[in-house]
Amino acid sequence: MKSILLIGQSNMAGRGFIGDVSPIYNEHIKMLRNGRWQMAAEPLNFDRHVSGVGPAASFAQAWSEDHPGHSIGVIPCAEGGSSIDDWAIDGSLTRHAISEAKFAMETSEIVGILWHQGESDSYGERYKTYEDKLLSLFKHLREELNAPNIPIIIGELGHYLGEVGFGKSAVEYKEINQILSKVALTEKNCYFVTSKGLTANPDGIHIDGISQRKFGLRYYEAFSKQKDVLDVLPIEHEWIEKVAKRELTKNERIFVQSTKFALGQLSFEEFSINISNINESK
Amino acid sequence: MKSILLIGQSNMAGRGFIGDVSPIYNEHIKMLRNGRWQMAAEPLNFDRHVSGVGPAASFAQAWSEDHPGHSIGVIPCAEGGSSIDDWAIDGSLTRHAISEAKFAMETSEIVGILWHQGESDSYGERYKTYEDKLLSLFKHLREELNAPNIPIIIGELGHYLGEVGFGKSAVEYKEINQILSKVALTEKNCYFVTSKGLTANPDGIHIDGISQRKFGLRYYEAFSKQKDVLDVLPIEHEWIEKVAKRELTKNERIFVQSTKFALGQLSFEEFSINISNINESK
Repeated sequence: MKSILLIGQSNMAGRGFIGDVSPIYNEHIKMLRNGRWQMAAEPLNFDRHVSGVGPAASFAQAWSEDHPGHSIGVIPCAEGGSSIDDWAIDGSLTRHAISEAKFAMETSEIVGILWHQGESDSYGERYKTYEDKLLSLFKHLREELNAPNIPIIIGELGHYLGEVGFGKSAVEYKEINQILSKVALTEKNCYFVTSKGLTANPDGIHIDGISQRKFGLRYYEAFSKQKDVLDVLPIEHEWIEKVAKRELTKNERIFVQSTKFALGQLSFEEFSINISNINESK
Repeated sequence: MKSILLIGQSNMAGRGFIGDVSPIYNEHIKMLRNGRWQMAAEPLNFDRHVSGVGPAASFAQAWSEDHPGHSIGVIPCAEGGSSIDDWAIDGSLTRHAISEAKFAMETSEIVGILWHQGESDSYGERYKTYEDKLLSLFKHLREELNAPNIPIIIGELGHYLGEVGFGKSAVEYKEINQILSKVALTEKNCYFVTSKGLTANPDGIHIDGISQRKFGLRYYEAFSKQKDVLDVLPIEHEWIEKVAKRELTKNERIFVQSTKFALGQLSFEEFSINISNINESK
């Protein structure tokens, strides 16, 4: 099995509203929980009780479409509000991410790292020391994971920053984006993904659910083609609609019913009838 | 800071419906996320997307009432569906729990372990080997955490098992309960907590939200008094009502508003007004 490591701050963890998008249920997408793999369901990266839609689900769905019959695991280590200093190589976030990654590596090969971070460093001239800190982190991760050439996909900070709500204080996001772009250009196997056209929640800082679906697709485009993605992908809307209409497998339909039952939305009788119907269907 | 380790299967993780109970918001209760402490909010132990209310929140609230001005951290490592074999000392669940505990120990002292597990071993005569496996796990945890005398609180399996729904197959829960009780009796600093009177979700296996509040209170009674809790506590209903009416601190009220805003339930204007009102209040 293959796996990907999610690191960064809240927009990598995901704060898109769950109800704003069609759910992605796919028995070939797994998430790491307590050192083991479980079938994935959003929120994948539960750093907070308000976690929601991030880029990983659509990334994994796109990967899955390209690798029929194979599975991809998501290792959720992004942490809301974290600054680049929180990702110091001897800091707890970095050590914890490496620890989680090593559990994942017992049963999978990590094939990529998805990075999205910088809102917490978009003020007070923090950009002046950001590049060295980011390079130090990437170098350290590649060493610790024994994966010197692992692709690292770097997402741009939202163009909507610096304007309203919680995003208002992120006045130097363009400076951070310049560094993210430069690192992707100069470091081997690092690729840059534009945030062009992505929109925010009313808080002015968190990428909304639909935009996260698009962003994940762009991350996958960069990962799979090993190139920077500098513009909107023409297929984004169409792909999101296609995924929403995707016919679920038997296991996935059972998973959906089990979810509803576990949340108290079905009686045991209704649940049992629905499961029987699924099992008897073709 | 003090902390407690949560291990076991789904009823320790928590599957009580969030909407069935008053939320517990307390700035002195923390949860471990990515190796660091965050203010707690349920679900505390997010092993699955259907995770809900477990015993830890009311345990921590009761601890907090007894230790004004001090904080308690919850280390969530319970895993839904796990059997005692999954908790083998070289298995990934146990190694992962120890790894998480060690992150917690960088900034806290672990003062107790809460255990609830056994539904997955309540059939097929698995009880015959359960005791040795449980003792082996407890011994190993105490060694690895360098806490030879740490209290371990052992919750009884629900008396409602073996009857309906997913609980129907747990026909040998009484045999497991006998072992849990015996281990608590014979092992030093192990205490048993009755499940008397606790009720289940419609699935017949998961302790419901209100019962989890009671169960956590019993776990705390066993922990704080260092004794077995063999009967319903007379204060349970009254305590739950009292906690529901507890006046929140400023920080907690801000946390509640931030939660609503992060979930899209308030506009930025409404959120800003509410925060201003909180900050201007006494």
